[in-house]
Amino acid sequence: MRISSLLRTVAAVLALIPLCASADGAKYVFLFIGDGMSATQLYAAECYRRALSGADTDSAAGRADGALSLNVDAFPVRGMQRTGSYNHLITDSAAAGTALACGAKTNSGTLGMDPAGTQRWKSLAVLAKETGRRVGIVTSVSLDHATPAAFYANVSSRGSYEEIAVQALESGFDFFGGGSWLKAQSEAYRSLYPKIASDKVADIAADEGYTTVASCEGIRALAAHPADKVICSAPVLAGGSALPFSVDRPQDQPDLAAFTDAAIACLTKDDRGFFLMVEGGKIDWACHANDAAGALGDVLAFDKAVGRAVAFYKAHPEETLIVVTGDHETGGLSIGFAGRGYDTSFARLAAQKVSYEVFTQTVDAYRRAKAFPTPYDAPANNIDAQMKSLILKNYGIDVDTLPQYRRDLLEAAYDRSMSGTPATGTEVPTGYLKGDHSSTLDYLTYGGYDALTLELDHQLAREAGLSWTSFAHTAVPLPVMALGKGAELFGGYYENAEVARKIAQAMGLAQTLPVAKGE
Amino acid sequence: MRISSLLRTVAAVLALIPLCASADGAKYVFLFIGDGMSATQLYAAECYRRALSGADTDSAAGRADGALSLNVDAFPVRGMQRTGSYNHLITDSAAAGTALACGAKTNSGTLGMDPAGTQRWKSLAVLAKETGRRVGIVTSVSLDHATPAAFYANVSSRGSYEEIAVQALESGFDFFGGGSWLKAQSEAYRSLYPKIASDKVADIAADEGYTTVASCEGIRALAAHPADKVICSAPVLAGGSALPFSVDRPQDQPDLAAFTDAAIACLTKDDRGFFLMVEGGKIDWACHANDAAGALGDVLAFDKAVGRAVAFYKAHPEETLIVVTGDHETGGLSIGFAGRGYDTSFARLAAQKVSYEVFTQTVDAYRRAKAFPTPYDAPANNIDAQMKSLILKNYGIDVDTLPQYRRDLLEAAYDRSMSGTPATGTEVPTGYLKGDHSSTLDYLTYGGYDALTLELDHQLAREAGLSWTSFAHTAVPLPVMALGKGAELFGGYYENAEVARKIAQAMGLAQTLPVAKGE
Repeated sequence: MRISSLLRTVAAVLALIPLCASADGAKYVFLFIGDGMSATQLYAAECYRRALSGADTDSAAGRADGALSLNVDAFPVRGMQRTGSYNHLITDSAAAGTALACGAKTNSGTLGMDPAGTQRWKSLAVLAKETGRRVGIVTSVSLDHATPAAFYANVSSRGSYEEIAVQALESGFDFFGGGSWLKAQSEAYRSLYPKIASDKVADIAADEGYTTVASCEGIRALAAHPADKVICSAPVLAGGSALPFSVDRPQDQPDLAAFTDAAIACLTKDDRGFFLMVEGGKIDWACHANDAAGALGDVLAFDKAVGRAVAFYKAHPEETLIVVTGDHETGGLSIGFAGRGYDTSFARLAAQKVSYEVFTQTVDAYRRAKAFPTPYDAPANNIDAQMKSLILKNYGIDVDTLPQYRRDLLEAAYDRSMSGTPATGTEVPTGYLKGDHSSTLDYLTYGGYDALTLELDHQLAREAGLSWTSFAHTAVPLPVMALGKGAELFGGYYENAEVARKIAQAMGLAQTLPVAKGE
Repeated sequence: MRISSLLRTVAAVLALIPLCASADGAKYVFLFIGDGMSATQLYAAECYRRALSGADTDSAAGRADGALSLNVDAFPVRGMQRTGSYNHLITDSAAAGTALACGAKTNSGTLGMDPAGTQRWKSLAVLAKETGRRVGIVTSVSLDHATPAAFYANVSSRGSYEEIAVQALESGFDFFGGGSWLKAQSEAYRSLYPKIASDKVADIAADEGYTTVASCEGIRALAAHPADKVICSAPVLAGGSALPFSVDRPQDQPDLAAFTDAAIACLTKDDRGFFLMVEGGKIDWACHANDAAGALGDVLAFDKAVGRAVAFYKAHPEETLIVVTGDHETGGLSIGFAGRGYDTSFARLAAQKVSYEVFTQTVDAYRRAKAFPTPYDAPANNIDAQMKSLILKNYGIDVDTLPQYRRDLLEAAYDRSMSGTPATGTEVPTGYLKGDHSSTLDYLTYGGYDALTLELDHQLAREAGLSWTSFAHTAVPLPVMALGKGAELFGGYYENAEVARKIAQAMGLAQTLPVAKGE
């Protein structure tokens, strides 16, 4: 028998085998989005965890203990995506979320619509719902924030929080979990969106058949007694109706993994399969504020949630797909700082006991208690014993033993914070190239954050050997990690919108993304 | 016929087919190493090229023209590697090169030996030679620099340049191309390595049977008339016996692609197959100096060389493997700068007409001509018309129209440069955490480079929306791009040493790396 004839025989035989496994789409699909998270944030978080456990990250052995690896690091497939939006190389989260949800690029600021803002796109979550799967949305920020909203909303401006909230409730999705809602109380919006007629979104939620769960016991109970159409919000909320940063979270409060557990339980009430999006949304917020310990703590909380999906995958390996990626990098984080050369000291980050958010509140309270005169008259070297003690307690930095140039930077930041005028707004000045420069240096130094907090976050990160280039997003390409059914689709290098198209393919969805509503 | 029985039949039939294709290793193997190059350097270089051609990198359409994509971006497989050395999270090039060449981690500073410095390891190149393939080494830096040396040398210190040169010549490799040699003239070393008895390595090269080619015509001629045992050096060398930066290269001088052409010609003189390592070594040098235009120009030159390998692959698709990666990231580059927010302007980089190396020489010549008194007495705002003209010509920066804070930074840098004391050495001060801080701020600001050049490079990069965190290497994970036979091995996330092991597997080498000499 010649080889060619043999091959034909084999092909004929193979054609008889039913392609049961490969023709079906993945039944259980997880999409994890680390907002602001690149490979650098992931690797820094891994090193941080190792350092916390006492390992020497400068030794190959100290970096080798698999028990301290991230869950995502074991994923067999790692591709890479470019994140630019339709109209900006450096995207915002709305356009990036839309690309990951709907499979096409739109303008920065737009959610679930084309760049012209005329066509509404169906997201993977909507298509999953339409094809009979259950759908869940979990995030560490508010449920109406850009990234989660990209999976259920169609609005030309991400700031239309009331409209977004209404669209969430009308989505019919089976599970929402994490933070709460941002602006449902606004009078101005009530007239625009009459459905929001009360102070609480919960009232409309009930109209739409949703049960709101907002107690630790209630959230825990869902794992054993899953419910239909649940909105599950953290009992203790931080700023922006979001979960507290991981570094601030009281031990008894639910973390992202707890919400993921509740979601999985509710989405597997029956055998319909599911699409679950889980966002680590505050990685981005901490990176905006150049708060390394805050960011890396939230990366670890995010990876812990990924671990829950991996456990589910192990029970359903033939039917589960897990995709983990980011929407863009934030802050221009690098593992390397000019002042440390080739050295790093991740263990130093453990000295930071609170996030930038909480320390900013501490500084505010201190300033109000001091009741400094206005205008603030700043003598040299005036950080007092009380503030030195707060800095030592929360950052492990002893002001009195610092080299003079670092102390000078802290004194300048302290004066800036105590002046009582809020830090120059978070708007980026137009001044680097031209125009008004009165606020440029202030922005370059403090990025619109509380000056003392920002300077402390910078100094501690630099001690650790980490450094930042921006208070905004960056265009650094991001890794895409995949595990399970269809994972092989995610290798290579592609645009962010391809991630959604690959997931659609892995799910066996017949349509080519983007799908316009009405199709 | 039951399915299980059918499958057994298919398996039996398949077992009869000779595994000719998959059992053989890749016959032609390229390993491209971009020294200091991460996914960020690659993406920034792509955006830079698009901007140079007039495309709007803020528009998705402006980023979509495939003709302006990098050659590596089309590679079907993109994995990711961690670069830490045996004793440092942030590696040097010797340990990273050793991992990529020999398949095991060693201490920073060591080449081709174990961390204890007692065992000599065989590199992929040596193993390729031993198994009958031809071997070539191409680099844009000197032939005895750490990365190329990792493929032929075994020394406990990368600074042993004479010993390294001798080992290069004793390697018997078929082709060396790029820069020249660093220190063969040193008296001190002649006694240590008596083989180097003359001022020119070329003399020893002849003893070892090598022909040295160092003319444009000679290098071009190799493509048509390939030779055995060739050492091919650029006729015009820049500092460090290296090729000029791409931005400085005279049009008629050979670039990295020209050396790659010559290498391919010489390595395909017969049908033995080859292993060719090509390093873009000065990407790293420019990144150390935070010179964005210099770095991105050299990334494009590197990718052009990759294009030559891709053309070869297209002629031999079943037998060729191309792997492209870096050895570590340098500089902590990000595509995003605090002062530009979400904006970038890559076209601004085109205003830079020379590398940091050449502009430093310009500043030196200017200072010597001025013959400033010592100690240098610096009045305020003293950049004169001549220097303003040099800055405008070489960086497109008009000092007179700059906002005051940027002008202040340039004036301070100018004073620092004109003081005549060389910039504080390139040693990183121990001061960020503790110790002597007298030079710390100076180092943090200028990194040991000419102050005025460094400040101009920083300001131009920031105008473009790029920024840096370090003058040293970083621990940012790197992409690994693969095309051709065995490319599928390079997916996923792994340590740098795995790259060499995967190449060994793709080549069909029987041994498990590292292989000690004597085995």
